[in-house]
Amino acid sequence: MLSEDLIVRRRRVLRGLRQYYDLPFHPIRGEGCWLYDVEGRKVLDAYNNVPHVGHCHPHVVEAICRQVRELNTNTRYLFEPIVEYAEKLVATMPDGLDACIFTCTGSEANDLAWRLASNFSGNTGVITSENAYHGNTTFLDQIDGSSTKARRENPNWWIRVPAPPARQSGDAREDKVAAVAYAGQCASAVAELIGRGHPPAAFYFESLFCTDGIRVPRPGFMGEAISKVREVGGLIIVDEVQAGLARCGTDWWAFQNLGVEPDIVVMGKPMGNGLPVGVVVARHEIVDAFYARDRYFNTFAGNPVCCAAGIAVLEVIEREQLKLNALRIGTLLKRKIEGLMERHPNIGGVRGRGLLLGIELVIDQSTMTPASRQARWVINEMCRRGVLVGLTGPDRNARNILKVRPPLVFDEHAVDVFMTTLDAVLADLPSRLE
Amino acid sequence: MLSEDLIVRRRRVLRGLRQYYDLPFHPIRGEGCWLYDVEGRKVLDAYNNVPHVGHCHPHVVEAICRQVRELNTNTRYLFEPIVEYAEKLVATMPDGLDACIFTCTGSEANDLAWRLASNFSGNTGVITSENAYHGNTTFLDQIDGSSTKARRENPNWWIRVPAPPARQSGDAREDKVAAVAYAGQCASAVAELIGRGHPPAAFYFESLFCTDGIRVPRPGFMGEAISKVREVGGLIIVDEVQAGLARCGTDWWAFQNLGVEPDIVVMGKPMGNGLPVGVVVARHEIVDAFYARDRYFNTFAGNPVCCAAGIAVLEVIEREQLKLNALRIGTLLKRKIEGLMERHPNIGGVRGRGLLLGIELVIDQSTMTPASRQARWVINEMCRRGVLVGLTGPDRNARNILKVRPPLVFDEHAVDVFMTTLDAVLADLPSRLE
Repeated sequence: MLSEDLIVRRRRVLRGLRQYYDLPFHPIRGEGCWLYDVEGRKVLDAYNNVPHVGHCHPHVVEAICRQVRELNTNTRYLFEPIVEYAEKLVATMPDGLDACIFTCTGSEANDLAWRLASNFSGNTGVITSENAYHGNTTFLDQIDGSSTKARRENPNWWIRVPAPPARQSGDAREDKVAAVAYAGQCASAVAELIGRGHPPAAFYFESLFCTDGIRVPRPGFMGEAISKVREVGGLIIVDEVQAGLARCGTDWWAFQNLGVEPDIVVMGKPMGNGLPVGVVVARHEIVDAFYARDRYFNTFAGNPVCCAAGIAVLEVIEREQLKLNALRIGTLLKRKIEGLMERHPNIGGVRGRGLLLGIELVIDQSTMTPASRQARWVINEMCRRGVLVGLTGPDRNARNILKVRPPLVFDEHAVDVFMTTLDAVLADLPSRLE
Repeated sequence: MLSEDLIVRRRRVLRGLRQYYDLPFHPIRGEGCWLYDVEGRKVLDAYNNVPHVGHCHPHVVEAICRQVRELNTNTRYLFEPIVEYAEKLVATMPDGLDACIFTCTGSEANDLAWRLASNFSGNTGVITSENAYHGNTTFLDQIDGSSTKARRENPNWWIRVPAPPARQSGDAREDKVAAVAYAGQCASAVAELIGRGHPPAAFYFESLFCTDGIRVPRPGFMGEAISKVREVGGLIIVDEVQAGLARCGTDWWAFQNLGVEPDIVVMGKPMGNGLPVGVVVARHEIVDAFYARDRYFNTFAGNPVCCAAGIAVLEVIEREQLKLNALRIGTLLKRKIEGLMERHPNIGGVRGRGLLLGIELVIDQSTMTPASRQARWVINEMCRRGVLVGLTGPDRNARNILKVRPPLVFDEHAVDVFMTTLDAVLADLPSRLE
């Protein structure tokens, strides 16, 4: 009843702001990877990467409360937290990625990355992957491959290349063939953009291609494709908003798994455990060239409170060994899901790395036809039974991949709850869905 | 020494991120309209509108700490704070401005306003005032009139109109002539945009034209100009990022002083007292038309912690009668500055409303030649002597207006400190500046 009234009020003032599930989910408290709803239900959060080290983590809460009591101001003055935070972030990066510009969101960071790349390269074209989503600004909306809205026309300075294959054969020769084909597609895109008078300033991609249904290219797979872009002066912008910050379990950043050396790295969601924090990390030549000709000031970005939250998140990841946990628990979860495939022909496979997994739902394992309606039913039913999980690709017309991207404090008990619920929901999946 | 070391570290990792003053200002604690720096100095903040109800206001701090301990999540779920906050904001607005979309920054809100306006109008052109700055996204950078950077070319869908006159004669007939001239400039801009194939989707302006050096059009002054834009379907987007939220002392919003009825209102800086909060408030038809064809989701925007801060700010404004305080103290301050003009020929005048004042520095009062170098010297010297004040317009090449835009808790003692310091600094102003 409380929720019903709130829905009416919400619709009146927030209009078309959608809810994720068909039934309203009304949380009032969070702790670790658990949320408690208004009816007292305990719900497992297997979806949100924003509460990265766990909902309301006490160390982060304390850091925020300490700083908000002391000082919060803009970065035109001198203070310690932004410098400390930037240094700590750069320390997680490969050599050369040594300069930061803070923003408040991943969208702002991807938008700023474009200003950096076009300034540095002098070029005007963009390449993205087929179903890429990099944010909500006017510029990023123009290169939104995940949108199904009717457009008058796409800008002629934007071109898309297919994402790397979702499934790999495991055979080295076949993989090599796929990499060569992928590089060929990138080379064609570069040539096409040049033909249109817009050589690429940037090739944007998510390290694990989340909006393309989660794909994990083998190390080196992207190398040849990337060099096609670099040959004409284009920069490589890697979007780590979803996959980054120790989530993949082996490194701090997902791109490190791919053997990719980006020019610009973009981060957002998980950084402040819920406070708005985004950042662009780039080679300092790129940042210096930008500041030499242009300016960027963002009033809230890099403020002491958001930076205190960001530093605390990094500390928790270290102290609680959450990178290792992501690897250990993610591997366990993946194996258990694979184990379920025998009993549930609707599971076509599971892919991903660490605590970023995609469970592919299909009509059956032989045809591998995407089961999009079934996937929508499954996430709603899982929410109803107390587990939050998301939905993604493989493309904007077929969203049949369950996206599992929980807080990094996911543990064995959470895995058990997740598996029991998934098993039961799939068992109840209606054979026909309207 | 502490500061020196920090400056070196800051430059290494944050590169060209500029500081506001020539000498570093290194605050470590804030309270009310006071900041305490690393050397223990107590510094008056007469500049920042972000700590709107005072630095580290205990009521806002408590609201943030309470919510951050309980729950912070995205708006795809149901929760109370965003609905309550949106309702409270809409309640401050004139009838008809009844729908909200939250963002994290004023830049994001101005950028989103463009997506709303172009969708609703079907038009593609933009009008701004001459030296307008509305934010830092790729789109907003294209319509940045305040920038001095070299551009290849301005977009042909953007046109600028002069800001309303900085000084008014006080004579009704002359004022009428000025308003007609202003409307004529807008009509020409509209015609020019139509001629280029880009009828205006939007006319953006700041209610008090801060980046044009602070201008206070009389009620009704803008009416005829606005109707020229509306005649061809363009929307009126009012940017309240600097002037809004009770600062002007008479109403909640500065546009209410101008007799203007915007279609879209954009807010940012002061909303969360330092946490990143922005919002677009618009007529619901505009928002509904947008959601019918497009989508906008912003992970952090409208989160419970930022909304709790926003609600607390509104509560403090009410409880402490800060609107009235802005009027009372702003009027006092303005009168005292006017009183200083006799002794200091470098003060050409003071304008503004409530606690948003511009002090025009000139070579002398007879010629009224802008004293930009002197103004830069004055703000640096005032900072050195313990008062923060900013600098603005009247245009991008002449920044001779001291911008006084303090937290709304500015009081008589603060006025005394401000006046004593300004008086002394002006007395010491070197007759020749290199």
